[in-house]
Amino acid sequence: MKEDCIFCKIANGLIPARKLYEDDDFCVILDLGPATKGHALILPKEHYRDICELEETVAAKVLPLAGKIGKAMKKGLGCHGFNLVQNNGEAAGQTVLHFHMHVIPRYENGPRIVAWEPGTVSEKEAEKIVEAVRAEL
Amino acid sequence: MKEDCIFCKIANGLIPARKLYEDDDFCVILDLGPATKGHALILPKEHYRDICELEETVAAKVLPLAGKIGKAMKKGLGCHGFNLVQNNGEAAGQTVLHFHMHVIPRYENGPRIVAWEPGTVSEKEAEKIVEAVRAEL
Repeated sequence: MKEDCIFCKIANGLIPARKLYEDDDFCVILDLGPATKGHALILPKEHYRDICELEETVAAKVLPLAGKIGKAMKKGLGCHGFNLVQNNGEAAGQTVLHFHMHVIPRYENGPRIVAWEPGTVSEKEAEKIVEAVRAEL
Repeated sequence: MKEDCIFCKIANGLIPARKLYEDDDFCVILDLGPATKGHALILPKEHYRDICELEETVAAKVLPLAGKIGKAMKKGLGCHGFNLVQNNGEAAGQTVLHFHMHVIPRYENGPRIVAWEPGTVSEKEAEKIVEAVRAEL
């Protein structure tokens, strides 16, 4: 636990929050500024800045848990779908530097949450990108 | 493999794509309409409509793989962060109904990808939401 981290405090019960779920590794809470009704955050109890720091054994548990939460939202809240969003780094919009995954219920005719303008990429540029990333894998 | 699914065909090599990575379970390709330079998609080779259908053993491998890809993007492409985005259901903006996770590199001063207006939730409403979701877990 990192002393000055608000998500460490919430996940470990030092600051109260609306908990949807808890186990040894994670706490799932309602977001205080929800994008939609039921917007939740999956927080590991241990402090990891982002996915680049996340231990593999913990990382392996996140998506099965997110699926479980999302399914319960569909049944319990009647949402029609849900987004998983996980931001890494301030350049990616990460505001609290403790790994967290958003589970955002979506309702028909609700607001857009995730959107981008599809760009294009030339064959040559794509080749360069593939080479550059593969070289680091 | 589902015969009429484009992501099944891509993940299993029946339609060519720019591959960043491949193993027994997954294929990671460049998105043809990238939000940013290097935008990639993690595709399981088996067909699952969304995370609600994803087998737990496969789900467990997605986030460790996404972390690996994101780290390689930071080193290889020089991005400053990255978003993971995974949409479930048409109401959530899922356009191809084969599970996929977006890995979107982010560069300083680049466009916003994920954004929402933070809402509010009353104590009473939050209590109801928590009860409704917990009842389904």
